Amino acid sequence: MIRVDLNADLGEGFGAYSICNEEELIPLLTSANIACGFHAGDPNIMRRVTQLCADNNVGIGAHPGFPDLMGFGRRFMQCKDEELENYLYYQIGALEAFAKMVGKKIQHCNTHGAWGNWLEKDLEYSRKYVRALAKYDKNIIVKAIAGGYRQQAAQELGLRVASEFFADRQLQNDGRLVPRSVPGSVIHDKDLIVERVLRAVLEGKVTSFEGVDLSVKVDTILTHGDTPGSIEIVRSIREALTQHGVIITKMEDFI
Amino acid sequence: MIRVDLNADLGEGFGAYSICNEEELIPLLTSANIACGFHAGDPNIMRRVTQLCADNNVGIGAHPGFPDLMGFGRRFMQCKDEELENYLYYQIGALEAFAKMVGKKIQHCNTHGAWGNWLEKDLEYSRKYVRALAKYDKNIIVKAIAGGYRQQAAQELGLRVASEFFADRQLQNDGRLVPRSVPGSVIHDKDLIVERVLRAVLEGKVTSFEGVDLSVKVDTILTHGDTPGSIEIVRSIREALTQHGVIITKMEDFI
Amino acid sequence: MIRVDLNADLGEGFGAYSICNEEELIPLLTSANIACGFHAGDPNIMRRVTQLCADNNVGIGAHPGFPDLMGFGRRFMQCKDEELENYLYYQIGALEAFAKMVGKKIQHCNTHGAWGNWLEKDLEYSRKYVRALAKYDKNIIVKAIAGGYRQQAAQELGLRVASEFFADRQLQNDGRLVPRSVPGSVIHDKDLIVERVLRAVLEGKVTSFEGVDLSVKVDTILTHGDTPGSIEIVRSIREALTQHGVIITKMEDFI
Amino acid sequence: MIRVDLNADLGEGFGAYSICNEEELIPLLTSANIACGFHAGDPNIMRRVTQLCADNNVGIGAHPGFPDLMGFGRRFMQCKDEELENYLYYQIGALEAFAKMVGKKIQHCNTHGAWGNWLEKDLEYSRKYVRALAKYDKNIIVKAIAGGYRQQAAQELGLRVASEFFADRQLQNDGRLVPRSVPGSVIHDKDLIVERVLRAVLEGKVTSFEGVDLSVKVDTILTHGDTPGSIEIVRSIREALTQHGVIITKMEDFI
Repeated sequence: MIRVDLNADLGEGFGAYSICNEEELIPLLTSANIACGFHAGDPNIMRRVTQLCADNNVGIGAHPGFPDLMGFGRRFMQCKDEELENYLYYQIGALEAFAKMVGKKIQHCNTHGAWGNWLEKDLEYSRKYVRALAKYDKNIIVKAIAGGYRQQAAQELGLRVASEFFADRQLQNDGRLVPRSVPGSVIHDKDLIVERVLRAVLEGKVTSFEGVDLSVKVDTILTHGDTPGSIEIVRSIREALTQHGVIITKMEDFI
Repeated sequence: MIRVDLNADLGEGFGAYSICNEEELIPLLTSANIACGFHAGDPNIMRRVTQLCADNNVGIGAHPGFPDLMGFGRRFMQCKDEELENYLYYQIGALEAFAKMVGKKIQHCNTHGAWGNWLEKDLEYSRKYVRALAKYDKNIIVKAIAGGYRQQAAQELGLRVASEFFADRQLQNDGRLVPRSVPGSVIHDKDLIVERVLRAVLEGKVTSFEGVDLSVKVDTILTHGDTPGSIEIVRSIREALTQHGVIITKMEDFI
Repeated sequence: MIRVDLNADLGEGFGAYSICNEEELIPLLTSANIACGFHAGDPNIMRRVTQLCADNNVGIGAHPGFPDLMGFGRRFMQCKDEELENYLYYQIGALEAFAKMVGKKIQHCNTHGAWGNWLEKDLEYSRKYVRALAKYDKNIIVKAIAGGYRQQAAQELGLRVASEFFADRQLQNDGRLVPRSVPGSVIHDKDLIVERVLRAVLEGKVTSFEGVDLSVKVDTILTHGDTPGSIEIVRSIREALTQHGVIITKMEDFI
Repeated sequence: MIRVDLNADLGEGFGAYSICNEEELIPLLTSANIACGFHAGDPNIMRRVTQLCADNNVGIGAHPGFPDLMGFGRRFMQCKDEELENYLYYQIGALEAFAKMVGKKIQHCNTHGAWGNWLEKDLEYSRKYVRALAKYDKNIIVKAIAGGYRQQAAQELGLRVASEFFADRQLQNDGRLVPRSVPGSVIHDKDLIVERVLRAVLEGKVTSFEGVDLSVKVDTILTHGDTPGSIEIVRSIREALTQHGVIITKMEDFI
């Protein structure tokens, strides 16, 4: 019996701004990465989205970012280790309050944008991050890109790790993402995305950008909800997995 | 045996800014109202201040404010009930994370500045606030000005309430604060402040601005730490109370 | 020969957020109210939008708001007169820099959301606003709702005023807007909107919500660009006015 | 006749926060670097400080920073060239409005903190900066550390440049600043500071940290006002220069 989780970034609006139809997307997911007010998100959105997650049995995950709403957390900021630790706790704590209001706990955590990229640059950065997270709560699942430093650091520390597969991104031969700046690195064809997901989940295999077969462990699949087309892709992934007998369920059920 | 708590607003710096010497003040207090990042405060400051509180056996309290750093939470913002609820949860949750890192829970809550003033304008506003707080955690003590609507609302709901006496503020005959805009409403004379505190704590009596004797219940005394002089006043209050046999201890020990 | 200006609020995105397709809307307008970074807007958006205005011969107007991105400037904040003056200068100055980069000056100014509503509550508030604006630059046109206090205050001071007609809003018998909270106060029917605009521009008449005929002076028509439907309405208004021989041109050309 | 300008960073408070007594410092200066609301500063402070500058015949300079109030603009943010240009224009424009209200123009510009450090890392970065500034206004003086890339880039473009000497910082043999992280890099001794300033201004010479004599061009001296001691140092520098016949006057008077 194969189990897999479907996740997406949610709650990334702010005030009057919205960039995802959470009402439509959440019922298709099993886990949600919820912005916590630094790179995006605000208390009203966090309340609404955690309620939607509870209503749809979707795992509540923290998606902390750099304190840079203007840059959407996508640009690097040179922060000290201690600052990053404190930004992590502040954002997790804020989300934890909303999780508590719907009778839940935080299931998982993964950092957003430039923070995430930075952690994958150096095993030592990743170690500091997972150590900080474990000091807060050892039970929170570390969601981490398959084969990256965060995954390694979390395993070293004996934490629960969800190995993540990016449904629409090409991989290098070393298993890392082909940068977005490279043409063709992001896959837009729905059928190709579904086919890659199926092979990754069922066979643990994916073809690299250069055509080499790679092994990949897939606990959770990153999807998107910021365009009508992306929601259609999530629907197709769900259907294809279900038809192949895969159980789609939130990560804490099997990790 | 009379017990009383000494509290002050803390952690109200932001980034490079500081407005209180917490290292000097916290050892003199038994409870701290800690800014949570909206009207003031940031994750680094919250981490430092909660650690100082734990080190000095000082109760950790949330001091949530309006989302208005530029106005320091001192000016009214027309927020919806639901927004206020969400701003409350976000800020309490963020502080709770730092309390957790030092092995503590949030002891009490009181809103800052314009938010606090607004709650005291109408019993119904106060009821909504204490109901929201109780939905989050029934055990958090409501710190509320003696004789005000928040105190009444919290008592109606059966919550723990700390009745607060403002060491340096004149009262009207109805027990409410004389507005700051009225000349003489703020007391600067150290001896007079100490004398008023002693009488309020030992006899439950205070003289109003117009010279009438009022009854007052004092669980906690609001002090200040934003000037060297104010810290000296806290020291004098402590000494005077101790000399009169009053036990100075954090509010959760006796409420 | 009748002349009229078509305006809309623009540049109200922030960072990764967008709420209007300016590329599509601006060619249909003759004046733009550009957010200046407080309630919405950021330097990148301001640069792009002022360039689009210059490219399309659209008048550049400042649309300053309260410093409340989370509330999109729609909720009242209790600011002092001096603060409002300073918020006005800061935002106008910032926009002026971008206007300068495309060889233009600021054509007009109108305050956004709750600030605008507040000015219309009291003639004295409006007087302070227009006086502050005139101290900065006497030549900036005051865009003001027809028949309101700002219009009156600007006329008293001898400033240039653009009397504004809201294409899609019902009016009370006294000429003021029916509040949005009243069902039916916002008109969504394109044909009705076009018909009302034509009558207002050609005959200076509009029917109030209660069916009374009112006189109205129309220098500029407020349109919207935040939905595909709203852009279609602007197109229809343009066509209808042009077919009736009205010259659509930016306000500084005739005020 | 030797002329020199005395400058300092000002207006770096925010809302209720203050870090410099501008009322005391400004009368001692001839030029002010005024924060523009991104790393510090707000409209109220900018209004007050520009008025003080006008009252004391002090040149008004823009001190734009990264959009990072929490980090006080001291940490690097990976911004695109276009973003930096727009952040520059926005902040200069905002300050220009306040300068205009006191009948002045912006005299000079220098970027704050991490932005400044970044510009000095690469001549190309500095070229982009001075080109952006010149596109806005060719007459604004580029204040730049003596011997750095910004100075070079501004000279290449034929702009007015004020060569800056840091009164309290040690220099490497190549003329660049010894990093703050190096013990002894910041000079605290008043007499030594005054002695170095005198030699630099009168002889164009300064001794490097390693004891080598360097030539230095001094148009303006950077002082500080964030501690009582630092204001005392400015006073001593003024007196010593005046006693040696140096004319202390704002940079636009002689550059």
